[in-house]
Amino acid sequence: MDLLHLARRRKTVRRFSGKKIDMDDLLHCIEVAREAPSGMNMQPWRFLILGDGERKRKVREICERAERDFHERAWEELRRWMAERKITWKKDFLEDAPFLLLVFSWRRAPYFIQSTWLMIGYLLLALEEKELATVTYTPPNPREIEKFLEVDDDYKLEVILPVGYSADEKRREGRRDVKEMIYMERWGAGMR
Amino acid sequence: MDLLHLARRRKTVRRFSGKKIDMDDLLHCIEVAREAPSGMNMQPWRFLILGDGERKRKVREICERAERDFHERAWEELRRWMAERKITWKKDFLEDAPFLLLVFSWRRAPYFIQSTWLMIGYLLLALEEKELATVTYTPPNPREIEKFLEVDDDYKLEVILPVGYSADEKRREGRRDVKEMIYMERWGAGMR
Repeated sequence: MDLLHLARRRKTVRRFSGKKIDMDDLLHCIEVAREAPSGMNMQPWRFLILGDGERKRKVREICERAERDFHERAWEELRRWMAERKITWKKDFLEDAPFLLLVFSWRRAPYFIQSTWLMIGYLLLALEEKELATVTYTPPNPREIEKFLEVDDDYKLEVILPVGYSADEKRREGRRDVKEMIYMERWGAGMR
Repeated sequence: MDLLHLARRRKTVRRFSGKKIDMDDLLHCIEVAREAPSGMNMQPWRFLILGDGERKRKVREICERAERDFHERAWEELRRWMAERKITWKKDFLEDAPFLLLVFSWRRAPYFIQSTWLMIGYLLLALEEKELATVTYTPPNPREIEKFLEVDDDYKLEVILPVGYSADEKRREGRRDVKEMIYMERWGAGMR
């Protein structure tokens, strides 16, 4: 399948079926992702895979505690955006997905955030190729999770990717017209 | 071709052949990239395509002025890394590539840097699929380029991607063992 079809097929999934996934498929996706380029080729990332029910439950608990606060304080536009999508402070997906793939960046590398997120782009496409679903979940309180997981100080939690098979009926989000995004030769100058 | 092969085939290219590229191929890659997910689906990015020789030359000039300084002040490890790869302050690729694709992020979106770089991950794979080459060039002085290009204040230059056909003989950079990057259940706990 070509990339355009893969990219268009992929949607963000927040509900997972109980179906187990093959660990080898998950490792394959990491094999793809780690081929991404990075600043000074430092590959400034680490992956932590959680499959243990008790540890997933604890991560969920830590996240939900902060999510409740976050939802109360959310600005109006975000609040509406979340309500329309029935997104609440509850993060069932952190327990329901067979695996949580936590991605960390190494703070001491040049462009560590940029490099790590570029690599996450590879990762999402690789998951889609294996028909695995995920959501790029960024908890409001990454430091508390780092602390619970006893992560080295030099590493920063960038994202939690719950990985599993989709049970999410919601339709894919639309995209804006590409012509709105592209300028030719001059800022603001349209394509035609 | 599957993603693993695509990701492994891709290498960073800093020398371009004079061969023209098809603008439709470049637009196709942007079509793929814009399918990437983003915080609140805000798609917080803009693309500026420069093909005009005079404007490319001016961008190069602005970058090289800052690169000279940057190279003089570079820390020892970076200096060595660059010397081994014969990377100097000279950025011929900014003129030699048929097109410069500048990617900007919209500062007012949540997670605008993360979202934009995730999308750049899609973009690099899409370019590789079309056998187009690039380097994720991050100039030391993005603000000066924004000023020259009269970019809206709300937008931030994230990267300049010179796009063309490779004339770079250098071999691809290696990658570390995947086992060094993956922990199972606990930070620091190896795969086997």
